[in-house]
Amino acid sequence: MNDVFIGDDHFHDQCGVFGVFGDEEAAKLTTLGLHALQHRGQESAGIVTVHDGRLRTHRAMGLVGEAFTGEVLDRLPGAQAIGHVRYSTAGESSLRNCQPFAVDYAGGCLAVAHNGNLVNAIALTESLEARGSLFQSTSDSEVFLHLMAHHREGDLLDRLAQVSAQAVGAFSVLVMTGNGIAAMRDPLGLRPLSIGRRGAAWVFSSETCALDLIGAEYVRDVAPGEIVAVSSDWEGLRSRRMAPGPHGVRQCVFEHVYFARPDSVVFGRSVYATRKAFGRILAQEQPPPHGHADLVIPVPDSGVGAAIGYAQELGLPYEMGLIRSHYVGRTFIEPTQSIRHFGVKLKLAAIGAEIAGKRVVVVDDSLVRGTTSKKIIALLRHKGAAEVHVRISCPPTTNPCYFGIDTPTRAELIAANQSVESIRQFLGADSLGYLSADGLHRALEDASAASPDRRYCNACFTGNYPLPVESAGASNRCA
Amino acid sequence: MNDVFIGDDHFHDQCGVFGVFGDEEAAKLTTLGLHALQHRGQESAGIVTVHDGRLRTHRAMGLVGEAFTGEVLDRLPGAQAIGHVRYSTAGESSLRNCQPFAVDYAGGCLAVAHNGNLVNAIALTESLEARGSLFQSTSDSEVFLHLMAHHREGDLLDRLAQVSAQAVGAFSVLVMTGNGIAAMRDPLGLRPLSIGRRGAAWVFSSETCALDLIGAEYVRDVAPGEIVAVSSDWEGLRSRRMAPGPHGVRQCVFEHVYFARPDSVVFGRSVYATRKAFGRILAQEQPPPHGHADLVIPVPDSGVGAAIGYAQELGLPYEMGLIRSHYVGRTFIEPTQSIRHFGVKLKLAAIGAEIAGKRVVVVDDSLVRGTTSKKIIALLRHKGAAEVHVRISCPPTTNPCYFGIDTPTRAELIAANQSVESIRQFLGADSLGYLSADGLHRALEDASAASPDRRYCNACFTGNYPLPVESAGASNRCA
Amino acid sequence: MNDVFIGDDHFHDQCGVFGVFGDEEAAKLTTLGLHALQHRGQESAGIVTVHDGRLRTHRAMGLVGEAFTGEVLDRLPGAQAIGHVRYSTAGESSLRNCQPFAVDYAGGCLAVAHNGNLVNAIALTESLEARGSLFQSTSDSEVFLHLMAHHREGDLLDRLAQVSAQAVGAFSVLVMTGNGIAAMRDPLGLRPLSIGRRGAAWVFSSETCALDLIGAEYVRDVAPGEIVAVSSDWEGLRSRRMAPGPHGVRQCVFEHVYFARPDSVVFGRSVYATRKAFGRILAQEQPPPHGHADLVIPVPDSGVGAAIGYAQELGLPYEMGLIRSHYVGRTFIEPTQSIRHFGVKLKLAAIGAEIAGKRVVVVDDSLVRGTTSKKIIALLRHKGAAEVHVRISCPPTTNPCYFGIDTPTRAELIAANQSVESIRQFLGADSLGYLSADGLHRALEDASAASPDRRYCNACFTGNYPLPVESAGASNRCA
Amino acid sequence: MNDVFIGDDHFHDQCGVFGVFGDEEAAKLTTLGLHALQHRGQESAGIVTVHDGRLRTHRAMGLVGEAFTGEVLDRLPGAQAIGHVRYSTAGESSLRNCQPFAVDYAGGCLAVAHNGNLVNAIALTESLEARGSLFQSTSDSEVFLHLMAHHREGDLLDRLAQVSAQAVGAFSVLVMTGNGIAAMRDPLGLRPLSIGRRGAAWVFSSETCALDLIGAEYVRDVAPGEIVAVSSDWEGLRSRRMAPGPHGVRQCVFEHVYFARPDSVVFGRSVYATRKAFGRILAQEQPPPHGHADLVIPVPDSGVGAAIGYAQELGLPYEMGLIRSHYVGRTFIEPTQSIRHFGVKLKLAAIGAEIAGKRVVVVDDSLVRGTTSKKIIALLRHKGAAEVHVRISCPPTTNPCYFGIDTPTRAELIAANQSVESIRQFLGADSLGYLSADGLHRALEDASAASPDRRYCNACFTGNYPLPVESAGASNRCA
Repeated sequence: MNDVFIGDDHFHDQCGVFGVFGDEEAAKLTTLGLHALQHRGQESAGIVTVHDGRLRTHRAMGLVGEAFTGEVLDRLPGAQAIGHVRYSTAGESSLRNCQPFAVDYAGGCLAVAHNGNLVNAIALTESLEARGSLFQSTSDSEVFLHLMAHHREGDLLDRLAQVSAQAVGAFSVLVMTGNGIAAMRDPLGLRPLSIGRRGAAWVFSSETCALDLIGAEYVRDVAPGEIVAVSSDWEGLRSRRMAPGPHGVRQCVFEHVYFARPDSVVFGRSVYATRKAFGRILAQEQPPPHGHADLVIPVPDSGVGAAIGYAQELGLPYEMGLIRSHYVGRTFIEPTQSIRHFGVKLKLAAIGAEIAGKRVVVVDDSLVRGTTSKKIIALLRHKGAAEVHVRISCPPTTNPCYFGIDTPTRAELIAANQSVESIRQFLGADSLGYLSADGLHRALEDASAASPDRRYCNACFTGNYPLPVESAGASNRCA
Repeated sequence: MNDVFIGDDHFHDQCGVFGVFGDEEAAKLTTLGLHALQHRGQESAGIVTVHDGRLRTHRAMGLVGEAFTGEVLDRLPGAQAIGHVRYSTAGESSLRNCQPFAVDYAGGCLAVAHNGNLVNAIALTESLEARGSLFQSTSDSEVFLHLMAHHREGDLLDRLAQVSAQAVGAFSVLVMTGNGIAAMRDPLGLRPLSIGRRGAAWVFSSETCALDLIGAEYVRDVAPGEIVAVSSDWEGLRSRRMAPGPHGVRQCVFEHVYFARPDSVVFGRSVYATRKAFGRILAQEQPPPHGHADLVIPVPDSGVGAAIGYAQELGLPYEMGLIRSHYVGRTFIEPTQSIRHFGVKLKLAAIGAEIAGKRVVVVDDSLVRGTTSKKIIALLRHKGAAEVHVRISCPPTTNPCYFGIDTPTRAELIAANQSVESIRQFLGADSLGYLSADGLHRALEDASAASPDRRYCNACFTGNYPLPVESAGASNRCA
Repeated sequence: MNDVFIGDDHFHDQCGVFGVFGDEEAAKLTTLGLHALQHRGQESAGIVTVHDGRLRTHRAMGLVGEAFTGEVLDRLPGAQAIGHVRYSTAGESSLRNCQPFAVDYAGGCLAVAHNGNLVNAIALTESLEARGSLFQSTSDSEVFLHLMAHHREGDLLDRLAQVSAQAVGAFSVLVMTGNGIAAMRDPLGLRPLSIGRRGAAWVFSSETCALDLIGAEYVRDVAPGEIVAVSSDWEGLRSRRMAPGPHGVRQCVFEHVYFARPDSVVFGRSVYATRKAFGRILAQEQPPPHGHADLVIPVPDSGVGAAIGYAQELGLPYEMGLIRSHYVGRTFIEPTQSIRHFGVKLKLAAIGAEIAGKRVVVVDDSLVRGTTSKKIIALLRHKGAAEVHVRISCPPTTNPCYFGIDTPTRAELIAANQSVESIRQFLGADSLGYLSADGLHRALEDASAASPDRRYCNACFTGNYPLPVESAGASNRCA
Repeated sequence: MNDVFIGDDHFHDQCGVFGVFGDEEAAKLTTLGLHALQHRGQESAGIVTVHDGRLRTHRAMGLVGEAFTGEVLDRLPGAQAIGHVRYSTAGESSLRNCQPFAVDYAGGCLAVAHNGNLVNAIALTESLEARGSLFQSTSDSEVFLHLMAHHREGDLLDRLAQVSAQAVGAFSVLVMTGNGIAAMRDPLGLRPLSIGRRGAAWVFSSETCALDLIGAEYVRDVAPGEIVAVSSDWEGLRSRRMAPGPHGVRQCVFEHVYFARPDSVVFGRSVYATRKAFGRILAQEQPPPHGHADLVIPVPDSGVGAAIGYAQELGLPYEMGLIRSHYVGRTFIEPTQSIRHFGVKLKLAAIGAEIAGKRVVVVDDSLVRGTTSKKIIALLRHKGAAEVHVRISCPPTTNPCYFGIDTPTRAELIAANQSVESIRQFLGADSLGYLSADGLHRALEDASAASPDRRYCNACFTGNYPLPVESAGASNRCA
């Protein structure tokens, strides 16, 4: 599966958050941090700093590197900053929904950056509006801002504790006031959130790859159900625990399957190593027919880790049989008269010399609508592949996510509606094999897929949602 | 070696050409073709078509996909088109140097797209200016336009034969008139140029990957010293041979080492397969100390092929230990006070879980200034690598290219000034090994490096230039 | 006085509002209306429509004609719209302060466009924030939005009546809900607001010139202290009166002196005719020495009406001795080394043939800092004027405005700090004469300047503010 | 007649040239000069300087103030510069036709800025192309560049003398080499060109208003048929005369009627004073019926001078009954469904209070297609004018210009096809009167319209072209 295919199979990805407290170059470090998190949202980016007791904000559509030029950064002084990258999962993708949300008000400065999705957003919004609050955006993340404005008693931890008690859903959220930054993670721990240090400064990031980029040391993750805060009012990091939820911890398995960057450590595990483990177990469960194949190739880039694991497990040659273009943007014009269906070819090219006459195993991380994979297989056959065996390093995706991964509706999920054999025929593959749910959890060194003690959410494969999602379904709004 | 590093080791790359004759969607096909050739020049792009006997031109700075929108393409009707992508190798990079160069004049329409470098450009320019010609650009490629304007007798092949007799250097060039397109390649065959068919249309392209993208069938290469032309004045492809040069054929070895796309077939060979062969022979010549290493990793993307070949030859595990970001653009702002030297980290990240405590072989395609490699090695050591062994899939780069690959001056080429041991120390590597010149030619199934019968130019490794380059040195102007 | 001088004497001008109810092309008509009101604010423009029960908003920095392209208008369907043009009088001029302010909330759609200035904005903001309201802008106009959100009982008139009871200051404001538009004007009637009809549609506009442009018929002004509303809930225009204030009506005299467009009818009077009347009485009060002069010239464009009246009263020749450039923008670069003080010359040029050797009366509408006038006089003298007599068609500007005209502070107002003779010397004029305050009121057919029965505010000339302005001084925020 | 009406009556205007020799801020002064000449061409602007023996060029679509920012000027160092503003009169309006044209070639630097139109452009182009010259633009002005390249003998004056001997038509042209600037004007003197001094620097400008802006002293005009040059090779200004033409001097009368700025002195006469003289004689020839009218109003801005002269001659009140908007740009979107024909109202508004019930004389400078005037008259009637009498301060425009004023074809010129009475009916005016041709020449203090001794070209009114224009008709290309 690939992230920016044009009108094709993909999960829209979503959000990343990043924050720095205690460095005069906070905005610059945050720009770098967001750059490292760019894969979590390429649609808009924003940074808020505090300088002389007032907020400085810049939010823009587009990539971090384009939006945050030197001139812009000059307008964002201050020693504390939070930032956000976003991919809209709801229809509207305008500037007013860009995060962080920020206000200067009687209670001081307030800014919020949120990754996740609240399942009780509608009820909270109605309740706040009934009290006179006006929402400027259509994003459920703005709820945190208004809740903070209504909970003014106590210090930052006290206030967030009150806010967290009202919020239900997935939330890895950063809250900044005039003199501190708090980070909190919902009790299920659905989205990642890590803590780092860089000299005297504290850093918060959705993924550790952003800590690496700025040379920050990884300290630990914010724990599920934990609120941590740094402030000029006290020394060091303070922590508080929310009341535990009834469902234990349910971290998002899809961060490992596809969403996170391979060089990140997410939920305590190397993403790359985990993907290789998926590939190894997939090779055990779904070897090529008779164990024979001439080569194993990944669908780049997200299938690389699993393909290497698969090839190593079976001792088969690994090749880069598909090449990914670096130049595919969003505005490419397709010829309209005689030339069609360039989508996949604009992005991927097959190396004929490797493919022709060969039995090829193609490893991809997941299969959503199946249309892109179908084109890849056609491409390989056109280059003369003798056999094409498709292997997917996760179970069939049968249910949409309501907690921060934007999957299509059930109607569009091919595995929700068709058997594996039927999918194979649709793809035109010689064979098709998925990793099993238990294999997946085994690779994660977790309890089995059905166990109540497992620490990972697998709802997209099983439909076992850790929270009721009826209302969420109605407002699958951006994180 | 990587193509778009920021202020770092790299060859500026140069130019790609593409043309279509006989399809009403010529401009759209050319847009796609140039997209596939984008790696040959990301700085500017241009397309010229002929419609109703007049030229239509669009040239712009930036990427093909950004410059050629639907609106632009609507202004480029016509059944024949030539296009060009360019990376400036001379100082000036303005719009007026963008190709194709095109004029409507008394003799009709004329447009030129050139990949290469003329070594007698200054003398030709002076001679033409003495006759009253005015040059609008500082590119030596404009010479072809003026030569064509002065050679008006005969058909397209006749005229190009006269033009080719005056040009000395590297030229894979497309010339379009009101009713035809000609393609010619200098007698040494320094730059590639291939011929394809798509239905009734003829296609010309620097590399075959562009033929693949538009679904054109590869017919053959334009031979070194050959002029071919298609025209509404006759059926099919006509061909003529220039007088052979005294130096035989000298195709650019660096197209295989680094420049061409791995899915192209260049000079009759699969680029990917050739790179794997470089890696295999490199493994034979330069195994890790005692033959032991824990893993082999490429510097992505250009080192991938050689790394896979190296790992396969020795049976060592291949891993994607370095991850390449898709989001590095040219305008990224580096923090200025406390944070420096982000260059390589903005683009590459190391996967700590794979590296820590391991003996790592890093395979790169070439080493120019060495500064990027030095940072990569530091990155690996920071992630805990026990040993770092650098392997380069070509010989030491000791001499600049004057024929269309933009290398730095000798003074900047690290291998031109230091021994291998001295370079190893500069890089901070535990060992350093290059592919030998003979190994390189062996991988290419060519005569030995010193043989006068070899078909590849290896001047960048040996200084044996196939043409005198003194004057070229003074005007290393863009191809 | 001229409106867009660069770094020079001028009142920043401020805001204009426009609304349409009952035409499917509401946004297009509003674009035209705002274009006609562009002189009231060139800095930003915004339009909000209601379509399918939801707000559609576009706000942008820059001129109406640039911001509201066809593509933008296609995104603003609906039969009701309000719009706003703005010139920031406070420091911050960012997009988030652009009006109209608009929200979709539990109570439905709400949008506000305000011309004027609240003197109790700070107190209202603090009170609202204490109840949990979050302000997204730094504009006092946003107060109306939050007050509306807290007053939800009754129909649109009821709600505005409650809101108006809390607002103190200058407000000509349009409020739009999902099914209606209300217009209200503060009891003093400081800013203009007129009602028009165009077929079945109702139109509201700061000035009548915008009604003319769209072919709407002028119906009447919104009266001081009146709220009017149109709605799909009832037929026709409903009206309600606020409680009268203790100070009667005090319409802004400066709308006639300078701000309004000469083809508008403001407060029941033709602006052009009023300016001619100012010029006639000025001629009676301040003829040139001995009644002699060779010609009368205006400072274009704002001095034209008064200059014509002045020349007609005395039977002196009127000439366009100063030419105004149409091409002065904001970004013009001044030469920095040897060439300076181009400000006025970039905009105005003197016609030497008319000026040389002549006794010239120059008529301007007002004198703020005096620096521009000084340059104009120098320009005339450079062209050889024998005598230059400056006549100003209003009294000395001695006090800043807090009600929607942005004047500089007292310290910068030349007439607040110097005698007329001293100003004359500063200007380098042979004589200087101002219209008297009583003459001004006489021209307006008003009670005398000191009478409590006068209907015009003359605080900028007398300091007799109709409301306490201490707090306003602290927050002279945009209207 | 108005210069930028949208899709309406107008002459496209054309070109202005400006040059500075001997000031280190040459580009900045040229920017200012072009700003003052902006009315001669708003479509593109360009400046070329010489620095360190090389040309620096910037050309851009749009206004001078937008194109020449500080950053751009920093890239244009040097003590000599020429510049150009342009309005395309031919179809193509792309950047490649922007002037100045400039090349660095074997003979050194060369740049050309041309105002006018060559009638033998096609023949010259064909001749040059036959010798191998390649034209980059479709502008006839490029001919000068190639002619210069072919005439290399002698000094700048010698070379221009040779060039001028080949050029036939209207040319006020500036030619810059590496060490000097020459200015020449065709023997008929069709277009203006003046010489100024600013300290030690020499200045050349289409109109004197640009000299005024930069504080340069007017020295004299370049005489018809004169070549002048300044150079670092000699002291002061050198002059040479071309052979006189057979037709004497024929300066363009339309510069005075409409094109030039009123504060310029053109062909030795104040433009404003001349327009007043047109108005006075028009009043004598064409008074209102029975000599009665309530007021005289101009169509602003070009009708102002004549209207003042008209009103003064008859002792009638002059009023600004029509107001011109400063905000009309080119991209304004007209409503499409119910609202149409906004063209004139977006730009002009009538002051009802002055117009209603009055007998109005409207003075305009010229009448081309008549469609705009028709709308103005309808506007005045809509505001209640009792009578509308149209007076035009030049004779009926019956013939197109081929020498640098872009008039529509004869078929579109209303006066070429209809009687005055028929035009009056089309306009809906109560009366219509034109200035006579003899009256026009009398106002210019010239010989009579039919006299061979007259110094002004009146071909647009009489068809008596001073040169054969058949070929020019075919290529009415931009000046």
